Amino acid sequence: MPRQRVLSGMRPTGALHLGHYHGALKNWVRLQQAYDCFFFVADWHALTTHYQDKSVVERNVYDMVVDWLAAGLDPEQCTLFIQSRMPEHAELFTLLAMSTPHSWLERMPSYKDQVEKNRELATYGFLGYPLLQAADILIYKAAFVPVGEDQAAHVEVTREVARRFNHLYCPETPILPEPQALLTETSRLTGLDGQKMSKSYGNAIAMREAPEVVEDKIRRMPTDPQRVRRGDPGEPTRCPVWAFHQLYSDSDTRAWAEQGCRSAGIGCLDCKQPVIEAIQKEQAPWRERADEFLANPKQVHWIVEVGTERARAVARKTLKEVRQAMGLAY
Amino acid sequence: MPRQRVLSGMRPTGALHLGHYHGALKNWVRLQQAYDCFFFVADWHALTTHYQDKSVVERNVYDMVVDWLAAGLDPEQCTLFIQSRMPEHAELFTLLAMSTPHSWLERMPSYKDQVEKNRELATYGFLGYPLLQAADILIYKAAFVPVGEDQAAHVEVTREVARRFNHLYCPETPILPEPQALLTETSRLTGLDGQKMSKSYGNAIAMREAPEVVEDKIRRMPTDPQRVRRGDPGEPTRCPVWAFHQLYSDSDTRAWAEQGCRSAGIGCLDCKQPVIEAIQKEQAPWRERADEFLANPKQVHWIVEVGTERARAVARKTLKEVRQAMGLAY
Ligand code: SF4
Ligand code: SF4
Repeated sequence: MPRQRVLSGMRPTGALHLGHYHGALKNWVRLQQAYDCFFFVADWHALTTHYQDKSVVERNVYDMVVDWLAAGLDPEQCTLFIQSRMPEHAELFTLLAMSTPHSWLERMPSYKDQVEKNRELATYGFLGYPLLQAADILIYKAAFVPVGEDQAAHVEVTREVARRFNHLYCPETPILPEPQALLTETSRLTGLDGQKMSKSYGNAIAMREAPEVVEDKIRRMPTDPQRVRRGDPGEPTRCPVWAFHQLYSDSDTRAWAEQGCRSAGIGCLDCKQPVIEAIQKEQAPWRERADEFLANPKQVHWIVEVGTERARAVARKTLKEVRQAMGLAY
Repeated sequence: MPRQRVLSGMRPTGALHLGHYHGALKNWVRLQQAYDCFFFVADWHALTTHYQDKSVVERNVYDMVVDWLAAGLDPEQCTLFIQSRMPEHAELFTLLAMSTPHSWLERMPSYKDQVEKNRELATYGFLGYPLLQAADILIYKAAFVPVGEDQAAHVEVTREVARRFNHLYCPETPILPEPQALLTETSRLTGLDGQKMSKSYGNAIAMREAPEVVEDKIRRMPTDPQRVRRGDPGEPTRCPVWAFHQLYSDSDTRAWAEQGCRSAGIGCLDCKQPVIEAIQKEQAPWRERADEFLANPKQVHWIVEVGTERARAVARKTLKEVRQAMGLAY
């Protein structure tokens, strides 16, 4: 029984941080054991929002693959590749565009919201972003797409696009299976300031942050604003450090922190110490693996090369069927 | 001094008729002598409007190439290829989409008009049609695009797209030259009923129509509605046959027809005879050439194969520069 296929991509917009790891990558590492996983660097998608600054993508593509490998993605178990190396995605995108109502894309909440905030995003490509994503997914006939709740609408559009294609061109023997959203347990880690962790907010800890920087960043983290002096009791639910305890500490440590905070029995630096150590411990094997790959960049290129060709074989096969169904096979 | 490049495409939506020949193809045959001409079967473009009926495109691709060769396109002089065989166009389309404002496409008169007439056309692909066309043109760095007046707006969008790309990614050394519209003299031949000649109106004469069908069709053509009986004088400007005389007859014949009509000196069948003969004479070499190619379909495939690979070499080179400029060259 062949493993069912899972597809997911990540935009190369900067070094991955702990938020990426706990929000997605950790899940990928888990999924690769049970599914035939295809993970890709979504550099074209990054361009839909970063088209004005080419250096963003340029810098980050292979660096992100190193982050993936560091986290434990195993190229023997999963297929890693780069979107922009696959003209096949662009071709399927172009073909699917012909039969996709404009209105399906215009009503996507992501489009409206973001264009309202930033008029520079009102491009044809950004409008078509969910359709390009549909092509990314459908070209591999993925059975599952791991998504956060905010992306459920995108999987829904992918399903509609597939349904319409099958209805128009191959009603008897559908070519493009409708993927399912794979809702899996992930943790949202907030940043150093309690906001969403994001490089652009300056509140992130990179996956490969140096241990002394991790220590420094956590020590400088703001805490419960009402705990001004060591002797003031605090309230963990008002403190961004508490979110880190919830993810990184066992129940004993959490109880110790909670009680010590409320009774002013411990200082904030005491409270932060186990968090610092837990993060450093989590990162140690990443750094070790990353160092190996960084010492041998050719190997990373080779892994991507092999993954890209493996993906291409699948993509070409689907595209051939699609062309045939559309009457374009001469 | 290398010849400057001209690019043009035609949609494979049916056997070419005399309107296509006089409106475009005749001009292509002329252009191939002075320019490095790239002519392509725009099958993806045909899908933007015919996506619901795949047989349209399927039937007509190679048949149209035969019409081209019959008309005198010489594969030694020009490059003939099929759009859907060039994923490179789809890739450039996808890349250009990222920086092309949605509004540039939405305001195209062709889009608004046609969608108003037919809601089925309100697709993402049909909206993007001028951008796909821009990719078709820019990927070959074409200097000129032969256009009818109604397409001038499309060349203008192509110029804007190129300008924006160069401005964003390579302001110092622009990669994508802005093409010029090549306004050349062409003749618009009306159909048998005086309307625009179109297969779907049933008023067309195919380029490779059998001589006896040409004769029959012209003999059945309506004439000046006020010339009911042989003895009634007529008025050529009210008669669709007159348009054919203007294209096919020399001035003596035209004077004879004009005078004979107004004086009722000739009958309508008399008047039509020189037109029948002129069309049959024009078509004879087409049929001859077409018969050769039809007897040897492999040769037609071979011509397209060679043209496609020649075009691909150029397309790949441009795409490489584009990827590099956008920071996608890893
Ligand atoms: S003791 Fe811990 S939980 Fe309480 S305010 Fe300080 S850092 Fe936050
Ligand atoms: S004589 Fe010729 S121009 Fe006059 S009505 Fe007849 S066909 Fe037309």
